[in-house]
Amino acid sequence: MNKPAACIILLLFLFNTTNTKAEDGYRLWLRYNKVQNVSLYNTYRQSVKQLQFNASSPTLLAAKKELNNGLQLLLNLQPAQVNSVAASGTLIAGTPQTSKTIAQYSTELKAAGTEGYFIKTVNVNGKSSIVIGANTDKGVLYGVFNFLKLLQTGQSIQLLAITEKPEIKYRLLNHWDNLDRTVERGYAGSSIWKWHKLPGYIDPRYIDYARANASIGINGAVVNNVNASAISLTKDYLVKTAALAQVFRTYGIKIYLTARFSAPVEIGGLKTADPLDASVQKWWKDKADEIYSYIPDFGGFIVKANSEGQPGPQTYNRNHADGANMLADALKPHNGIVMWRAFVYDDKVPDDRAKQAYSEFKPLDGQFRSNVIVQVKNGAIDFQPREPFHPLFGAMRKTPVMIEYQITQEYLGFSTHLVYLAPMFKEVLESDTYAKGKGSTVAKAIDGELDNQAFTGMAGVANIGSDVNWCGHQFAQANWYAFGRLAWNPELTPAAIADEWLRMTFSTDNSFVNPVKQFMLSSRETTVDYMTPLGLHHIMGTGAHYGPAPWVNNLNRPDWNPVYYHKADSAGIGFDRTSKGSNAVAQYFPEIRDQLNNPATTPEKYLLWFHHVSWNKQMPSGKTLWQELVHHYYRGVDSVRNMQKTWSLMQGKIDDARFNEVKQLMAIQEQEAVWWRNACVLYFQSFSKMPIPAGYEKPEHDLAYYRNQKFYFLPGTGGAQ
Amino acid sequence: MNKPAACIILLLFLFNTTNTKAEDGYRLWLRYNKVQNVSLYNTYRQSVKQLQFNASSPTLLAAKKELNNGLQLLLNLQPAQVNSVAASGTLIAGTPQTSKTIAQYSTELKAAGTEGYFIKTVNVNGKSSIVIGANTDKGVLYGVFNFLKLLQTGQSIQLLAITEKPEIKYRLLNHWDNLDRTVERGYAGSSIWKWHKLPGYIDPRYIDYARANASIGINGAVVNNVNASAISLTKDYLVKTAALAQVFRTYGIKIYLTARFSAPVEIGGLKTADPLDASVQKWWKDKADEIYSYIPDFGGFIVKANSEGQPGPQTYNRNHADGANMLADALKPHNGIVMWRAFVYDDKVPDDRAKQAYSEFKPLDGQFRSNVIVQVKNGAIDFQPREPFHPLFGAMRKTPVMIEYQITQEYLGFSTHLVYLAPMFKEVLESDTYAKGKGSTVAKAIDGELDNQAFTGMAGVANIGSDVNWCGHQFAQANWYAFGRLAWNPELTPAAIADEWLRMTFSTDNSFVNPVKQFMLSSRETTVDYMTPLGLHHIMGTGAHYGPAPWVNNLNRPDWNPVYYHKADSAGIGFDRTSKGSNAVAQYFPEIRDQLNNPATTPEKYLLWFHHVSWNKQMPSGKTLWQELVHHYYRGVDSVRNMQKTWSLMQGKIDDARFNEVKQLMAIQEQEAVWWRNACVLYFQSFSKMPIPAGYEKPEHDLAYYRNQKFYFLPGTGGAQ
Repeated sequence: MNKPAACIILLLFLFNTTNTKAEDGYRLWLRYNKVQNVSLYNTYRQSVKQLQFNASSPTLLAAKKELNNGLQLLLNLQPAQVNSVAASGTLIAGTPQTSKTIAQYSTELKAAGTEGYFIKTVNVNGKSSIVIGANTDKGVLYGVFNFLKLLQTGQSIQLLAITEKPEIKYRLLNHWDNLDRTVERGYAGSSIWKWHKLPGYIDPRYIDYARANASIGINGAVVNNVNASAISLTKDYLVKTAALAQVFRTYGIKIYLTARFSAPVEIGGLKTADPLDASVQKWWKDKADEIYSYIPDFGGFIVKANSEGQPGPQTYNRNHADGANMLADALKPHNGIVMWRAFVYDDKVPDDRAKQAYSEFKPLDGQFRSNVIVQVKNGAIDFQPREPFHPLFGAMRKTPVMIEYQITQEYLGFSTHLVYLAPMFKEVLESDTYAKGKGSTVAKAIDGELDNQAFTGMAGVANIGSDVNWCGHQFAQANWYAFGRLAWNPELTPAAIADEWLRMTFSTDNSFVNPVKQFMLSSRETTVDYMTPLGLHHIMGTGAHYGPAPWVNNLNRPDWNPVYYHKADSAGIGFDRTSKGSNAVAQYFPEIRDQLNNPATTPEKYLLWFHHVSWNKQMPSGKTLWQELVHHYYRGVDSVRNMQKTWSLMQGKIDDARFNEVKQLMAIQEQEAVWWRNACVLYFQSFSKMPIPAGYEKPEHDLAYYRNQKFYFLPGTGGAQ
Repeated sequence: MNKPAACIILLLFLFNTTNTKAEDGYRLWLRYNKVQNVSLYNTYRQSVKQLQFNASSPTLLAAKKELNNGLQLLLNLQPAQVNSVAASGTLIAGTPQTSKTIAQYSTELKAAGTEGYFIKTVNVNGKSSIVIGANTDKGVLYGVFNFLKLLQTGQSIQLLAITEKPEIKYRLLNHWDNLDRTVERGYAGSSIWKWHKLPGYIDPRYIDYARANASIGINGAVVNNVNASAISLTKDYLVKTAALAQVFRTYGIKIYLTARFSAPVEIGGLKTADPLDASVQKWWKDKADEIYSYIPDFGGFIVKANSEGQPGPQTYNRNHADGANMLADALKPHNGIVMWRAFVYDDKVPDDRAKQAYSEFKPLDGQFRSNVIVQVKNGAIDFQPREPFHPLFGAMRKTPVMIEYQITQEYLGFSTHLVYLAPMFKEVLESDTYAKGKGSTVAKAIDGELDNQAFTGMAGVANIGSDVNWCGHQFAQANWYAFGRLAWNPELTPAAIADEWLRMTFSTDNSFVNPVKQFMLSSRETTVDYMTPLGLHHIMGTGAHYGPAPWVNNLNRPDWNPVYYHKADSAGIGFDRTSKGSNAVAQYFPEIRDQLNNPATTPEKYLLWFHHVSWNKQMPSGKTLWQELVHHYYRGVDSVRNMQKTWSLMQGKIDDARFNEVKQLMAIQEQEAVWWRNACVLYFQSFSKMPIPAGYEKPEHDLAYYRNQKFYFLPGTGGAQ
């Protein structure tokens, strides 16, 4: 019974007599609230009294509008528009083509490359000025957003000397959005793409979506689900997609589509989709030509083939390279790319699910066309709270490999749990593959450094929906933000990203930023603790992936069942992936393989991923494995409760509306953390036969209660399957 | 190709340099923008300098918060809170229990009844004051909203003497929202009810929804689809529903649920749902008791039984009264009601669909329990652009009958077409049934006047979804608003309602209000013209009901096919419902029956509803029927184009954001009006064999083109069936 919750929230609402307009989260991190620090406010205003910004292209117009809007709201300032610098405090923005001043900064321009920019304090005509310069319109737009961020986060703009350029070429959001506006694994309402009203109606939200992406450097979006419908390739839908592309283009974002492999049959009237069949090849070539006639800068295709029921080249006894290359050939004349997903889940049940992608793709290395990128999930199973890095990183030496993260929290509490994902993104990037000896991190494997790849990419499965606050949880916006920032610069720290996001999104008050940043940074480890500590994985509820269900053992395929993954028995728990087990460790380079093959050298956080371990095994802490496992589950709940305590102290430091929303969701998170903990501890106890150590609160219900719970109409289950 | 549309909108956005925050429509008609007229602004501020308003109940707190918030935003005023009147310009609000002053106005209080209120300029202690008084907290809340409306619409508040009370007891929104958040016939995104996060998370939108409803007097909401899932009656979902009820209660809104008739089998473990079975009766009694334990003021059930595949009493060879009475008995101890829908569509194909509801329900008159209301759609087919009033109005003399309107535009262009529905609502209310002689209007049949019924009701199928602007089209908000206003007072005119809505929602500028009001008032007739003129009906696309498809003749049941309804042939067009045909006219009282039995006395707007008419028949205009039909179709398109012209003149009079949104949607409406016109004229021409008269633009495509169009993923088709 949660009647009190509704009551309390309502009374909080009713007794709150401040009449300011409620913050609803729609503005994301682009709120541009007036600068509160008086000294900064005055200094800023002196620095941007005039604006020299010749803009005629859509992208420069967008940059200028953003800048003027930001200055108006942040500084209550409408800078004078000037054509030359006659006074100090002039902001000059543009490219060498639009500004003679900017053309002079050849060193900075060279460093900025095609997408970067520089922001510099300079003297022009003896007057102190600020220059935002770039080689391209898009670079100027990125520079403007960064300049506004300096003001939003309270940085000094006195002696600026910033040069920024992205480390990764393709920085993409993948929307698992279906054409009926359901979103597979979406927890923030329906798809923001209103296909029915396109192309005639441009929802204002499309522009705000593009602004938000541009502000963090995202330069591509796949707008439809990888579990694809061929309908999105029909003329009617291409015309709709072209209208979206028009909006995106202004903000430097290319549009991509999923290609349903069987489209030639489903909408093309062919009898086969065999990639080596000439009529099929021609169909895709014609289709590519048609797409580019509507969308001249179309980005390309993403394909999920021969996985979870999707059709693919193996349907015709061809391999992934055959399929990818056919599409690549069709796109090549237009400079389009194919992102071919390595997440394969075919009809054969492998001895170890974790091995399949590597087994299928490693032998194909070198066989892909130059405009194919293989898209590899961060781990080998499926976006779990924690996974060791995918063995394909560093292993495909002749093929560009991009990483795929999941921003939407399919396995991390949906949009109900506060889980800041940057530490997880970062953990993978920092993992050392040893592909070319020590220091061959995943980051270097995907930013092209390792093998001098030109095509580099990072994709994130979006957590965006029609909820007014975009992501369902005010803090889930941080994951969208962090993904974009890390795709731009994988060297950034989760702390630095959280810091700037909090200042822009909520408040620059350090007494708010610092404690909240602290719990953000630990929130992912907290979630691992109460869901899947010590290397456990894939023990959630079937289908919707909601809540714990480690007991499930009756699904059609062994590798669909949680028991397949944890393998708990009276002796112990964990999946033996060593050379004595599935030998998945052999997919890693020797240094890592040997480390993981030995439980003594395996990092504790991955222990049960690679080893079946006795309940009695003594852990470094001195506890037995059983005690350690229980400790983690209880610690996870404690951490959520500590987060709640910290949050309660934030009341009054931010707006009541968002404070209350987060407070309510944290209460649900606490309930669900307890549920995870109790269900898992009680279930694993049925194997360990050991007691829950003294001092821990007793589970409220017995195991049967948790096993018998039923849930209906869970979110995120709409989709092609 | 609509690339230019996106381009123009984007450029409009980019070149618009005003930096005001864009209007997104979220605030509906409760924007409370600052009063622009300086004289009014000053007068208003003098009139409400002090506030005497003792509030401790949730509803009075809500009223006070609304009032303070409104005065702050409208007048930049925070009135001094006082306990007695010591100066002029005091606003006194409350009930006799909270204010001795108010207790003195016994005449006004008596007139206000339990839900009404009075607003009166009075002298208190010799000081000019304004009193908002009511017998109940809810009445005060309604009074506060009306007072704020006076300020929003620029009325004088100098000599107030208002007494208002609702004419209809049950003023309900019916949400056809499924538990998976799809909305059957919903065109504004997914359901606003986030069931998964209930009861712990109270979306701020729930409160704004309740505020909006309270502001127009809506006092009930059925939150789930009439095509029901029994899951909504499980404990988990009742707890969720109770959390919504808590929010609604504060704003005077009762919550209702649909009752899936087969729930005793589906979730109760019984073998039957036979309403005469004692175990079934007990199950429903226990279920009702359980519901009221969570929701003490639960409103009751709505039931769609034995219609379009839904289970019902006829499944067990019982009749509608048997089914309704069983549920009524279960609810009776708690003062709950049953709304039993007369929209029946059973397995047998009737000779005339239009006759079925009357045929089944009229014989049951007098057999229903006192807490059953039969809910009857405004017309006998299904929410068509125009239908003659339903013959059950006035016919059920011993049974309360409530009217069901469809606010969502299933058959009226979804949320893409601007169609102001108040004229349609009103047309039905003003229709004379002759049940007790001339003047026995539908309004009198449903407001209880005709047969002195105590239980009176008006239900509207909601057009609300998760779109930021709630209804998908800024102007669709007007239909929600108008429904509520007419349920409060069926005597209001569509013009008066449009006037106040426009002033609150957009602008009080008469040069905006007057022309826009004019096209709103004609917009429904415009839509009838381009869709189904002269009494045509049910000729839309199958399933999704999108666009024209008068040619469809291959559906399983005759009465699913458009050809069944228009019966066009070489001789003429129209459904003969006279005594020589289906004799549906006999369901009306003699005066109407005789009028409709004769084509010469049948109103032209209903002609083809009741008569099969020769293409050559000469119409009052002097045109042949064919020419008249063509004339209407072309006039409909012309009217849309005129509306576009008028709208284009409004640029600058309101915010650019909403101006542009409406402009885009009008362009789509124009395209779809042309599509309707061309498809219908060409199709009917294939029977009439007559030319399109000279002077009309030629259809762009041939009939085959229109017949071959295919559409996918149309909105509003999610649902139980």
